[in-house]
Amino acid sequence: MSKRVQVALLLTGNELMSGDTVDSNSSRIALALGAHKIGVGKKITVGDDPELLSDSLIDLCASAEVVIINGGLGPTEDDLTAELIAEVAGKVLVNHPKAIEHLEMWCERRGLELNASNLKQALLPEGADLVANPIGSAVGFATEVNGALVITTPGVPVELTAMLPEICDRIATRVGAGTAFIRRLQTFGIGESTIQELVNKRNDDWPSGVTLGFRSGLPQLELKLQVDDADLLTKRDEAESLLHELIGDHIIGHDDDQLAMALQRALLGQQMSVTTAESCTGGLIASLITREAGSSQIFGSGFVTYSNAAKNSVLGVPEATLVKHGAVSEPVVLAMLTGALEKSGSDIGIAVSGIAGPGGGSDDKPVGTVWMAWGAKEHHRAIRLQVPGSRERFQVIVAAIGLDIMRRQVLALPPIPHYIQRFIHRAP
Amino acid sequence: MSKRVQVALLLTGNELMSGDTVDSNSSRIALALGAHKIGVGKKITVGDDPELLSDSLIDLCASAEVVIINGGLGPTEDDLTAELIAEVAGKVLVNHPKAIEHLEMWCERRGLELNASNLKQALLPEGADLVANPIGSAVGFATEVNGALVITTPGVPVELTAMLPEICDRIATRVGAGTAFIRRLQTFGIGESTIQELVNKRNDDWPSGVTLGFRSGLPQLELKLQVDDADLLTKRDEAESLLHELIGDHIIGHDDDQLAMALQRALLGQQMSVTTAESCTGGLIASLITREAGSSQIFGSGFVTYSNAAKNSVLGVPEATLVKHGAVSEPVVLAMLTGALEKSGSDIGIAVSGIAGPGGGSDDKPVGTVWMAWGAKEHHRAIRLQVPGSRERFQVIVAAIGLDIMRRQVLALPPIPHYIQRFIHRAP
Repeated sequence: MSKRVQVALLLTGNELMSGDTVDSNSSRIALALGAHKIGVGKKITVGDDPELLSDSLIDLCASAEVVIINGGLGPTEDDLTAELIAEVAGKVLVNHPKAIEHLEMWCERRGLELNASNLKQALLPEGADLVANPIGSAVGFATEVNGALVITTPGVPVELTAMLPEICDRIATRVGAGTAFIRRLQTFGIGESTIQELVNKRNDDWPSGVTLGFRSGLPQLELKLQVDDADLLTKRDEAESLLHELIGDHIIGHDDDQLAMALQRALLGQQMSVTTAESCTGGLIASLITREAGSSQIFGSGFVTYSNAAKNSVLGVPEATLVKHGAVSEPVVLAMLTGALEKSGSDIGIAVSGIAGPGGGSDDKPVGTVWMAWGAKEHHRAIRLQVPGSRERFQVIVAAIGLDIMRRQVLALPPIPHYIQRFIHRAP
Repeated sequence: MSKRVQVALLLTGNELMSGDTVDSNSSRIALALGAHKIGVGKKITVGDDPELLSDSLIDLCASAEVVIINGGLGPTEDDLTAELIAEVAGKVLVNHPKAIEHLEMWCERRGLELNASNLKQALLPEGADLVANPIGSAVGFATEVNGALVITTPGVPVELTAMLPEICDRIATRVGAGTAFIRRLQTFGIGESTIQELVNKRNDDWPSGVTLGFRSGLPQLELKLQVDDADLLTKRDEAESLLHELIGDHIIGHDDDQLAMALQRALLGQQMSVTTAESCTGGLIASLITREAGSSQIFGSGFVTYSNAAKNSVLGVPEATLVKHGAVSEPVVLAMLTGALEKSGSDIGIAVSGIAGPGGGSDDKPVGTVWMAWGAKEHHRAIRLQVPGSRERFQVIVAAIGLDIMRRQVLALPPIPHYIQRFIHRAP
């Protein structure tokens, strides 16, 4: 059979079969290889069953140039990888001097004695070539099996990640590699199909050789601009410029940027500070702001006023306003905003009050209703939104909108983009 | 070849191969089948490649009694599942009247016209039997292929989840099923190996027929107690009682309970309320408390005092204390706690101030240092901890310890269990 795929993965572990563990290692491996333009063509996942493991390894060695095995390298009896390879390749297991050295050093660093179960990890198929594991005790190695290069890797994500650069190099030597020049952009408030439509309409202006990919998350959507040659980097820049022209106000940053980081940068650019007055999001907006390193430069204090009493005593919302309009109302969020700006001395702020559910809704104000006020003392506004979904999703989306709406104000971008329009409450 | 496994999965989609999407659907399927004591023995994942798909389906039909295909049911050209099955099974594709009916109803509910690309979804292998999809447009079906029962399922998680009960029933009819009586316990502050050791020491008291499993998360660890017969439910209760005896103060609840829910229950039991005064966790503790429905019964307000100025102006921490001891100090967290209790009128509270990093550390107070004060006005204490890891991990762990330490106070449990001892700072 001709080798149909460059790289195949064999994932092992009963916890992957029972559903108790979600496999994220194969995504790590594929992303790392993808940056070298090496593709993973097939994955097989089986439990710690010698017969299934051996059938699967034989199958993959026949169909791929390189097989990466993930898992089964530990010191316990379930860890079958070295035996499996020895059996399929018809090799004997021998004590590997460099593996023993690795285990001795690892034990020494942790002040442990090397014991028999650790030493099992040094028993490798004859002729195996170690792959350096700078972090853990697991011994990864490379060896030939039935015409394929087989590389074993540990299941512990940090160890795997630390070993991936060397593994990518070894595979590149075997199958040849290129470089994928990938530019990642983070967007918020616009969907994949809308972006694709806008790009399609400008098909004539899209630079050739640049591919556009998507990776969806909640609440952000990642765009990937890829070229396969350094000569095309200016084309990639052109594509990025076109995207900025088409959806610039939705592009919040690069790489792993989050909305809160985009807000932090915008505030730093204007030397402004921000405060929060949260009811239904219960501290989530403040938490997102302070999750980012450097947030102390733009954030001094925030208030979680969950009860009516707290809205009054902490932020000075008049009792009469609460009684007359209810906690989820325009006058209340405006008073919360004013109170938070005064107490904190911040330049701008956000105030939210809503009904996250599952209880607490009424005909007038059903679950999902939220009033949001944002801005500065002299320049602010408020809107009423209706955000569907579970309590958790409601909080995540309301917090994200809150961060984005402040970013838009600070950067003088269109304040209420299409996506917020969708959520705006309209009286029946 | 004899059928080695009951159920096999075939997962399709280029996004699963590129690493852009982490597959969580196979975990959903395995957990649902596991509850019926039906095991998934093998999974193959390939991209939208007709040849790889067809080889994989032939392989799985030969080795499993049932094959579930996930993905590839949509209306676009990449969606190859129906064609694949027709080809492998040697059947023709025909318009399926019930599938057309399903699509018509789905379009009608959404006010859409049924178009050609939708209608492609009704083109199914002859003799296919629909599986009801109460949520989406995708048409799942069951059909015989080379002696195996093949069931197709949509890649959209909510649609898959809605279809799983019927799918489990169909598979149970085919392969036979039992019931796994699973009791899930949530624990915090104790590791898998420690629990296993404690249980091993009491081996004689462990009821036979009860298995103990683990599912790790951050920051909680889930325990699974399983029996395979309703007659053994009292045995399972015995095992649960033994666990309560051994690690009762670490068991925070059942099913999907989170620490914040355990705290909420404890507070409700004593008719007490809680407040938060957060510096380094920046609102995360308040956010976790209010993520739980019902939190308004125990939480009125919380304070995020990130800057020194805010600690003084919002919570009344004396400027002199801040200057003399620094923001990360015992007197400051005690003053923050006092301030928050007074401002909120709550019965108990937590105050944290620390250095989340990556910057801001010193020789005296390196990154990871945190002072925590908790309790009531007249009954409180403070500790200094050293929590390693990234900024995000630091915040998650400090928040979890904060919630747990309050739960322990309210329930009069050992206040400083072993796991916190580990983090306690000791002067060199």
